[in-house]
Amino acid sequence: MRILNLLNFAEIFIYLKTTGFMFFDSHVHTEGLGVSELRKMKEAGIERVCSLSFYPIRPHFPQTLIDNFRKMEEFERRRCEALGIEMIPGVGIHPRCIPPNYETVLEHLEAGEWVLFGEIGLENATEEEIDVLTSQLRIAMEKDIPCIIHTPRGNKRAVTEKIIQILDKLSFPAELAVIDHVNYENLDLVVERNYWIGLTVQQGKLLPEDVAEIVKKYGNEKFMVNSDAGYGNEFVNAVAETARLLGKDAGRICFENCRKFLRYAPNPR
Amino acid sequence: MRILNLLNFAEIFIYLKTTGFMFFDSHVHTEGLGVSELRKMKEAGIERVCSLSFYPIRPHFPQTLIDNFRKMEEFERRRCEALGIEMIPGVGIHPRCIPPNYETVLEHLEAGEWVLFGEIGLENATEEEIDVLTSQLRIAMEKDIPCIIHTPRGNKRAVTEKIIQILDKLSFPAELAVIDHVNYENLDLVVERNYWIGLTVQQGKLLPEDVAEIVKKYGNEKFMVNSDAGYGNEFVNAVAETARLLGKDAGRICFENCRKFLRYAPNPR
Repeated sequence: MRILNLLNFAEIFIYLKTTGFMFFDSHVHTEGLGVSELRKMKEAGIERVCSLSFYPIRPHFPQTLIDNFRKMEEFERRRCEALGIEMIPGVGIHPRCIPPNYETVLEHLEAGEWVLFGEIGLENATEEEIDVLTSQLRIAMEKDIPCIIHTPRGNKRAVTEKIIQILDKLSFPAELAVIDHVNYENLDLVVERNYWIGLTVQQGKLLPEDVAEIVKKYGNEKFMVNSDAGYGNEFVNAVAETARLLGKDAGRICFENCRKFLRYAPNPR
Repeated sequence: MRILNLLNFAEIFIYLKTTGFMFFDSHVHTEGLGVSELRKMKEAGIERVCSLSFYPIRPHFPQTLIDNFRKMEEFERRRCEALGIEMIPGVGIHPRCIPPNYETVLEHLEAGEWVLFGEIGLENATEEEIDVLTSQLRIAMEKDIPCIIHTPRGNKRAVTEKIIQILDKLSFPAELAVIDHVNYENLDLVVERNYWIGLTVQQGKLLPEDVAEIVKKYGNEKFMVNSDAGYGNEFVNAVAETARLLGKDAGRICFENCRKFLRYAPNPR
């Protein structure tokens, strides 16, 4: 496998294609991607994605999110499948999209059957955000649902500490949590814990080179790469480009760890 | 201007650029377009678009549409502007997206200030659809709001007749209505009336050549071209490609008529 480091991307692509191994992007927003962008993603070898809930303005009504979850499970999933991308929808209240009467959304989450919660998390760590996150984590524990947890761009370190405090207080099962958008600002806080760690490759976040460096230092056991593509972010092949640099670690970091986190059926290929 | 017919698209583009004349796509769904697709649209010379309301599943709640209108007016408009595209949001209940208790949405439309209604119209011409369309047209008359009216793919002729019947019954001002997605199946029904006529250039709808033929036969007074781009449809430069074939008529059909319909300030360039 070490020889892969020396090959170019096209060769790796052919290698992965012939061995039946492809990529898993653990965090995208397909609602903010056009059909030509989804096709580009598929062509780069990304065959599975977690598409996470996010509403680009703060909704005035909890019902908007409830319909949005169904839109993702029905329409968006179908749209991806038509292009050969298996899409796992994540539902939940993003900390920037908390509607008034959010209890209605929590009741809906409590009552339904879900594969994945995300993105949930904290943005400014307000009391309301903390209540919304804690309530969603409680539902996830009770129903055994994996969670993708957003950490913000600003004040990242302090907010990550707050998230860890909340997880600890709940004794939240580490294997059910991805702490996402981790970078050099908060890496040391999470790398000694047992959570999964999401590395977002995106302008202004991490570069593929950063991921390679982090994996070299800390091993390939708990990281998963994602693009956070959608809306303003069109870098849909971030996971494939990172895999190119990772060489022998690509299998774990760009597919297998996300599959394990989701306790997903083994890749049938 | 006739020489334009002989030039290739790049030359027309440069010509339009230097003379300050660009294109107006009267019917898109920017919510279903990625940022790279919007950029492609802008690069093709499309500088103004009407982005129309459509929710890709039938919502369970009227509130979903109310938040969606605001999402278009705030988030989507900003997203387009950042790429240099002026976006005019159309709001309203599409006949395929009628929620339960749709009266709540009608009351919201009645209470607000709007630039454009669309897409409204009929899909199967059910009693519910007819009530929703009629109510929206009444609000439009009262508040003097231009309306883009969808005609369906199936049973197009009969449903178009029904729409015209509703418009006649209301004595709806012809200059406030675009009958959209008109093709050879229903063209004769609308071409003798005074409504604006929307021609959608898209696979399975009309080709640029069809538009050229229609305009040659019926003149350039009442037609406007659109792409209906978004979600599954990535043909974002349909209006520019049609303009290339239209030559001297492009100014009217691909910009000026839509500007007039919207009673929009003259192009400042």
